[in-house]
Amino acid sequence: MNIEIINIGDELLIGQVVNTNASFIAQELNKVGLNVVRITTIADDVNEIELSVSSALENSDSVIITGGLGPTKDDITKYTLAKLFESEMVEDEVVLDNIKKIFDHRGYVLTPTNRLQAQVPKKCKVIENLVGTASGMCFQKDNKLVFSMPGVPFEMKQMLTKHVIPILLSYYKPSAIFHKTIITQGVGESFLSDKIEEFELALPKFIKLAYLPGPNLLRLRLSARGEDQKEAKQELENQINKLMPLIEDYFIGFDEGDLSLVLAKLLLEKGESLSTAESCTGGNIAHSITINAGSSNYFKGSVVAYSNEAKIDVLGVSQEAIKNNGAVSEEVAKQMAIGAIKKMKTNYAISTTGIAGPTGETEGKPIGTVWIAIANNKGECVASKHNFFSSRENFINRTTNECFSMLIRWIKSNN
Amino acid sequence: MNIEIINIGDELLIGQVVNTNASFIAQELNKVGLNVVRITTIADDVNEIELSVSSALENSDSVIITGGLGPTKDDITKYTLAKLFESEMVEDEVVLDNIKKIFDHRGYVLTPTNRLQAQVPKKCKVIENLVGTASGMCFQKDNKLVFSMPGVPFEMKQMLTKHVIPILLSYYKPSAIFHKTIITQGVGESFLSDKIEEFELALPKFIKLAYLPGPNLLRLRLSARGEDQKEAKQELENQINKLMPLIEDYFIGFDEGDLSLVLAKLLLEKGESLSTAESCTGGNIAHSITINAGSSNYFKGSVVAYSNEAKIDVLGVSQEAIKNNGAVSEEVAKQMAIGAIKKMKTNYAISTTGIAGPTGETEGKPIGTVWIAIANNKGECVASKHNFFSSRENFINRTTNECFSMLIRWIKSNN
Repeated sequence: MNIEIINIGDELLIGQVVNTNASFIAQELNKVGLNVVRITTIADDVNEIELSVSSALENSDSVIITGGLGPTKDDITKYTLAKLFESEMVEDEVVLDNIKKIFDHRGYVLTPTNRLQAQVPKKCKVIENLVGTASGMCFQKDNKLVFSMPGVPFEMKQMLTKHVIPILLSYYKPSAIFHKTIITQGVGESFLSDKIEEFELALPKFIKLAYLPGPNLLRLRLSARGEDQKEAKQELENQINKLMPLIEDYFIGFDEGDLSLVLAKLLLEKGESLSTAESCTGGNIAHSITINAGSSNYFKGSVVAYSNEAKIDVLGVSQEAIKNNGAVSEEVAKQMAIGAIKKMKTNYAISTTGIAGPTGETEGKPIGTVWIAIANNKGECVASKHNFFSSRENFINRTTNECFSMLIRWIKSNN
Repeated sequence: MNIEIINIGDELLIGQVVNTNASFIAQELNKVGLNVVRITTIADDVNEIELSVSSALENSDSVIITGGLGPTKDDITKYTLAKLFESEMVEDEVVLDNIKKIFDHRGYVLTPTNRLQAQVPKKCKVIENLVGTASGMCFQKDNKLVFSMPGVPFEMKQMLTKHVIPILLSYYKPSAIFHKTIITQGVGESFLSDKIEEFELALPKFIKLAYLPGPNLLRLRLSARGEDQKEAKQELENQINKLMPLIEDYFIGFDEGDLSLVLAKLLLEKGESLSTAESCTGGNIAHSITINAGSSNYFKGSVVAYSNEAKIDVLGVSQEAIKNNGAVSEEVAKQMAIGAIKKMKTNYAISTTGIAGPTGETEGKPIGTVWIAIANNKGECVASKHNFFSSRENFINRTTNECFSMLIRWIKSNN
């Protein structure tokens, strides 16, 4: 069961928008054992759309298209598909009602342009969009399915999981697929690859190993595919058991999405709480935690102390510590973490103070220097120094992941 | 000058990694007037790579490839390109020296696997990678160029801007392109499209208008392309001047990347400072500000008060306000903003308190409800209530953008 994804949109080709739709669709299909073999991004252009859809239909079993369903002149996907599948356009009552409902709800007046969104190709099965005005479509040709969904991520996501995937699963019976991902840290890809070479070469054919490097971490993903679900799953577990002793020095956890979720699980299990005191990460640690639903059960808050005054006034860092050591120092990092524990009354706190760049270098403290401290409410506090010289964004992400893995290891080793 | 991008990597096809490389490359090429006509994502598979590169060479002037250059067994791009361009592999002294240097710097021992990375196809021009061990390659065939770069974003970005784009520009002389993007807020895409229909129909052929909806905002991008740079630029300005009166009710600013940068510019011009007090946005506002270099010049910090205790203890919100109105209320939002002004000693503060979901609904306060307050150090404070019912991530992003545009408008209207 091979599927191609086609993302339509000039904004993607000029790089103004990152194609998160493709990764979301791929992820969801992958979970249920449907293979994405190719992702193509093209312009809002009749010829390009016709060419890409026809070619995808030749090479794959189904095609999932996003984009170009809006109400404006540059949105031509619907008309192009109607032409390709030789279908006339008709106004759909149900779609029109939905559009009217949405306009009422938002307090807008329905315009003739909006009403055009109720026009759909007669030959398609309409896929409802309860959260937007552009409905989706499903065409069938020679036992192959072609889906078209809006490019707005929120609308597309609902449509995919509620309608498109169930339709696909009812058509095809994909072979089962199981993934298990291990997060490691403190080891390079090539070094680890050498270390587990024998293991990798001995893997059965239906199990695949992939290396997925991230900011300051390395994921290893094992995937098992098979007709016999139980057997595939069992063999995956067997291989994981063989792999574990080889990588134990670098093991952080099994993947629950990212490190913030590994940490969340640990804290929830223990009923313990966390706060952060962030300088150079500027709120990214708090954001990485609070993007997860349920985070208020263990996360109490953060003080983003971007200035020295905030470090002193809000976190209680001593003026002397900053004067004698500079803001980027072990002493200040520790005082920040201890300050967060006191202010936020949590079991644990993480702090960061560093130089994200591109400017801000001082003598002996090059760009990329960062001090991280972790503290608990028993009066214990440890700190470590790193250099994550890189782009500003990468520096922030690497520091964030270092904080998470440092605290995960600390909590585990204290028990 | 049409260019195709090919991103190689199983991790992209299963959606574990978002393809930010494609958008970065597209953006950089677009800036210098080079057209990206297609982006294709494929697996680490010999046949797929051969097929896609050959097809791209037929349809386009140049091809830019990323991925599959790592040291592990699943990295086969280099060998596949060598085969495609009928070239033997040789060890490159300069590449080997660079790899050794990087290993020394990191304190790792060079393994035989790493040494393989110094092998390059004899027919290619090697592109140096000073920040990683995988070098890039440039092949030439029938006056078309094929570039291959590593998939690690940090390494790819340096290689692209330092080497690949200069080589492309020395080969082709692209026609000039100018973009101007306007950020609007408080208006739907179709409504605006109707409003400016006449303007759009009257645009000269070499100027293109695109609608780019974002979380709680809508960008309008005008692009002018032409041989005569001065003329194209002038006509773009003329059209912008025609457009402005039609959209003034919704105008937030010209695009500097995103709203945080529009706000940054305003604050820097006035020499004023900002802090935030975040509940439901969980640090995302602070993160959106501090991801920008130079933000410490106007941003002093944030209190992410995820619990009631943090709101009371750190921001000085009164217990009564929470008891009488609930944490998600006008009164609490205002006290949070005023608390941030006092704690962080800034000219302005933004606060948020709301229900991001998927749970947390209470009577009269459905999921998506959010109160936003903005305050200044003259004792003024205003608040507004919204409902951004959506996914958790989208709720956070929409709230963040609402905060930025609310403060931008407030600062502008107070002068």
